[in-house]
Amino acid sequence: MRTYLECVPCFARQALDAVRMATEDTALQARVMRRVLAKVAEFSFELPPPVMGRQVHRIVREETGNPDPYREAKRLFNGLGMELMDEMRPLVESSADAFEASLKLALAANVIDLGAKSGKDLGEAAIRAEMNRALTGPLPACEVDALRHAVAAAQTILYITDNAGEIAFDRLLIEQLPRGTVTVAVRGAPVLNDATAEDAQEIGLADLADIITNGSATPGTVLADCPEEFRERFAGADVVMAKGQGNYETLSDEARPDLFFLLRAKCPVVARDLDCEVGRLVIRSGRGGLSAR
Amino acid sequence: MRTYLECVPCFARQALDAVRMATEDTALQARVMRRVLAKVAEFSFELPPPVMGRQVHRIVREETGNPDPYREAKRLFNGLGMELMDEMRPLVESSADAFEASLKLALAANVIDLGAKSGKDLGEAAIRAEMNRALTGPLPACEVDALRHAVAAAQTILYITDNAGEIAFDRLLIEQLPRGTVTVAVRGAPVLNDATAEDAQEIGLADLADIITNGSATPGTVLADCPEEFRERFAGADVVMAKGQGNYETLSDEARPDLFFLLRAKCPVVARDLDCEVGRLVIRSGRGGLSAR
Repeated sequence: MRTYLECVPCFARQALDAVRMATEDTALQARVMRRVLAKVAEFSFELPPPVMGRQVHRIVREETGNPDPYREAKRLFNGLGMELMDEMRPLVESSADAFEASLKLALAANVIDLGAKSGKDLGEAAIRAEMNRALTGPLPACEVDALRHAVAAAQTILYITDNAGEIAFDRLLIEQLPRGTVTVAVRGAPVLNDATAEDAQEIGLADLADIITNGSATPGTVLADCPEEFRERFAGADVVMAKGQGNYETLSDEARPDLFFLLRAKCPVVARDLDCEVGRLVIRSGRGGLSAR
Repeated sequence: MRTYLECVPCFARQALDAVRMATEDTALQARVMRRVLAKVAEFSFELPPPVMGRQVHRIVREETGNPDPYREAKRLFNGLGMELMDEMRPLVESSADAFEASLKLALAANVIDLGAKSGKDLGEAAIRAEMNRALTGPLPACEVDALRHAVAAAQTILYITDNAGEIAFDRLLIEQLPRGTVTVAVRGAPVLNDATAEDAQEIGLADLADIITNGSATPGTVLADCPEEFRERFAGADVVMAKGQGNYETLSDEARPDLFFLLRAKCPVVARDLDCEVGRLVIRSGRGGLSAR
């Protein structure tokens, strides 16, 4: 997906959020904002937004010397995620359709995204409300079944995560996938509140799956920039499950019916690209797939 | 008031709104956004936001060749304003306190601001709701009385307007001021949906008051840039009434107790500067005044 002009104010807002988490020095914050604006002014809008996101957050880290401004936020969301994961696992396991229940929770947990909007309104209450809405609401049966059949038949599944905290619910879904099939991919270095290997470790994902990384601080999956191992697993996987907006934005042009995007549409640009309303839980396969529109 | 870093995403959003009204050519829109970003990157944040606003909207006009992107919006709001003005004048005139009633409406009408946020949610229903909320809610009595006594004693009043449409309600308030005392100041050229002489003409303000301009396309009042006539009227007025955020942002450092800011606090930055909540109707006098905090 290309970058749209609506993304421009959002890059500025995201940079401001990040630099405020990175430093309290307002003169330094202003310098970062100036560098970010100059960089966005030169950006090729043909590229997907996470390519700009990588540059924005690199500027924040470079100028402030803070290697991971979202570290504290990620820790909080991981802690909350694990608490809710333990609380909700019995609900999933006693559900008539445990796969669908865990899928709903994993989709709803994609709300834990500090890129799509500022995190100040995103507390435990909002996350719980999103979970409950997902559990009690329907998912489109055709898409759920397409994914269900694809994973049931798969020998190898590549599961590309999005955010810290959210990955606790990814774990609940991965527990419902065939054992021994799953490789989990995280970001190669800190960017936004995206999950890295450290977060995967905190959530205990390594007990269930191999962990690999996209090799970079890109909040998405730019295949050309990914390490050989990632590209091989991506090419060879029977099914790819890609969580969140950043992975959608960077992989949406892949013509692979066995690639499933799993996300909550959180911004108007992505919602328009998906032809759905903001706030909708979305299961969409790559071009050529059953559920692609 | 200085510019804060929170203003940066807002400049970008405002530029996007404006350029979309000015042209449908997306390549041209992108060029405008790039120029705006480069300009904001160099802006001195010590200056008030309307100084940047002037530059943003100048870029939009220059690049698109559209001299007044908000012309249609201003016409619509003027039409609606006059309709509501005629409808509400009997309410004001039959009110136990016609001055306060018209003041409430003039404050509430400051919601018609396409700079503080995008106009897509601002229709007749939202404006009517704001009017009704104002009419049925209280205003702080001390501030109302300070303004009441100041205008009653004034031989000369300078009333600096903000937005098209809003000026219909300014007219209702001006009708309650002593006859022959009022000079109305509008913007010297189109910028945002700010009222110009053309809008004052449409609303019939010239029947009630002299009309002067700030001499420029600044969405506020930068005295050093205003023509001699404006500065003389400003300096000589017994009372200055300055509507809206832009006039507050540019004049808030004036130490004049006889200068009254009348506005609806619409953005978090201005609300914080005023020490009030977003959405609050505010009467505040210049530094040294009774109601200044």
